Amino acid sequence: MKKLINTPEREVDEALAGMAAAHPDLIRVEEPNIIVRKDAPRPGKVGVISGGGSGHEPMHGGFVGLGMLDAACPGAVFTSPVPDQMLAATKAVNGGAGVLHIVKNYTGDIMNFEIAAELAQAEGIEVASVVIADDVAVKDSLYTAGRRGVGGTVLAEKIVGAAAEAGADLKTVTALCQKVQDNVRSMGMALTSCTVPAAGKPTFDISDTEMEIGVGIHGEPGRRREALRPADEIVEMLVTPILEEGIFASGDRVLAFVNGMGGTPLIELYVAYRKVNEILTGRGITIARNLVGSYITSLEMAGLSITLLKLDDELLRFWDAPVKTPALRWGV
Amino acid sequence: MKKLINTPEREVDEALAGMAAAHPDLIRVEEPNIIVRKDAPRPGKVGVISGGGSGHEPMHGGFVGLGMLDAACPGAVFTSPVPDQMLAATKAVNGGAGVLHIVKNYTGDIMNFEIAAELAQAEGIEVASVVIADDVAVKDSLYTAGRRGVGGTVLAEKIVGAAAEAGADLKTVTALCQKVQDNVRSMGMALTSCTVPAAGKPTFDISDTEMEIGVGIHGEPGRRREALRPADEIVEMLVTPILEEGIFASGDRVLAFVNGMGGTPLIELYVAYRKVNEILTGRGITIARNLVGSYITSLEMAGLSITLLKLDDELLRFWDAPVKTPALRWGV
Repeated sequence: MKKLINTPEREVDEALAGMAAAHPDLIRVEEPNIIVRKDAPRPGKVGVISGGGSGHEPMHGGFVGLGMLDAACPGAVFTSPVPDQMLAATKAVNGGAGVLHIVKNYTGDIMNFEIAAELAQAEGIEVASVVIADDVAVKDSLYTAGRRGVGGTVLAEKIVGAAAEAGADLKTVTALCQKVQDNVRSMGMALTSCTVPAAGKPTFDISDTEMEIGVGIHGEPGRRREALRPADEIVEMLVTPILEEGIFASGDRVLAFVNGMGGTPLIELYVAYRKVNEILTGRGITIARNLVGSYITSLEMAGLSITLLKLDDELLRFWDAPVKTPALRWGV
Repeated sequence: MKKLINTPEREVDEALAGMAAAHPDLIRVEEPNIIVRKDAPRPGKVGVISGGGSGHEPMHGGFVGLGMLDAACPGAVFTSPVPDQMLAATKAVNGGAGVLHIVKNYTGDIMNFEIAAELAQAEGIEVASVVIADDVAVKDSLYTAGRRGVGGTVLAEKIVGAAAEAGADLKTVTALCQKVQDNVRSMGMALTSCTVPAAGKPTFDISDTEMEIGVGIHGEPGRRREALRPADEIVEMLVTPILEEGIFASGDRVLAFVNGMGGTPLIELYVAYRKVNEILTGRGITIARNLVGSYITSLEMAGLSITLLKLDDELLRFWDAPVKTPALRWGV
């Protein structure tokens, strides 16, 4: 295993220490390993938090800051955070207007966020939750009842964070998050596996001529293993099932998000974006906004995912709103 | 070779088409493969251009836009662009106030930028050039007489671009670029090789237990090959030679840039940043600004480089100035 770490046990703590040292203007890191917006809690503002296993950087900690998350709870690599973290984050960002939990649909995350929500409610904090489950690849999976939560989470955090920043109440913010979930779909693929430091060996074996279509962000199996193909065909294989969901129609405006899994060069993501654009244009769908880069990763896995979000004026306005976080920043 | 491409021959063209489709508000792509700021030329503004082989994304094309580069010339992967590109870029950004060429010190880049500068001058455009040669690892290298130009280039492009945006004349902008070069030093290392698509096989062989200290951004040999060590020791091995340059002293303020080579997860870069911060703090050097991420890459190579730039008020002001490019954005 080749990693730039000291020991697997210390990796997450040391990365958090690095983040805290690099971005003291935006965030603070508190026990028990939560990343909190520097100026939280903000009185009267709905708090928005998320969390999940580490190894999907910059998600979620890189999205803490103005106009996005108020706090993030990073677990060990590819391991759910514990309820104590979610409870501490909920309390740290509670400004009296309630807290929204944005939860990716993995069994451990769901369970632990539920426990934390109950504990927080017992302490008098109003909590709402929305589950993101946007991956069309598989119906159930290794760690999931129902669809997995993937790239749509990044878009939900941005849009919902902007609404909370603008002063929307908990009910409105929650409904908006559900609206994102209802209008977003994703699918991914991998060329290579990644190696979880504590495991010390690749999560799965894959030959030099194969790819995994529909892979999960922990390297979970997808729809099928097959021979590597040219990028344009791969993009077709990901976009087609998304379009078959029945959400996207000619005349629609979408946000197209081409996401690198970690080990894929940006030059390849732009090759893919070119084809996404070509396919959607051919279907009469306009890409009104886009995001191209590695924003929800699987450590050093080579591969990509494609996410489409159907936009309306409200989603567009909150997407465009200012954001200032370690990993996403514009307008300020 | 596992790549998300169609053919090696089409990769750069298709990536440029993707960039043009993704960022029409910021850039345009013109023949013969140049990326130009959308509103160039701007009358009275010094034009700032750079270029080099592709595969180092987001450099340089991702840095074209307000407050940074006016144009970039991408060659084939790890291959210098041709003088025609640099000439076309120079003409495209010439607003009558002259054009600065920021050139990384590689023999092909130097030669071709020189030819382009002569051709542009013959057409009446005033051209100045600054060579970035910040890599302390080796004195000469496979593609270089003198030190290689690496991470310092990113910082130079940001700072110099801000000065040009603010209306500085060619002489001032050129002197500022030289000042960055005089105050910036870098060193990198690799855990794995990368594969140039046209070659189809890894640039170098390295065993599962070794690392290359002082590697170049094309996978050129560094100082030595040795056994993999913990991240903290690796950071020490990179920072120490930089500090031994005699530029950085107790009481100084620096910009610390921890750069991923492409295949290194962000979580590992923050582990490394933590140690950089610890070492510099211990030496009485203050990290006044930082940049942590993959900004000058070697395709999918795993590894990192560390760059330190000694700051003064002028450099700090231009670093903080607004920038709006595909890959770097703040303040707007």
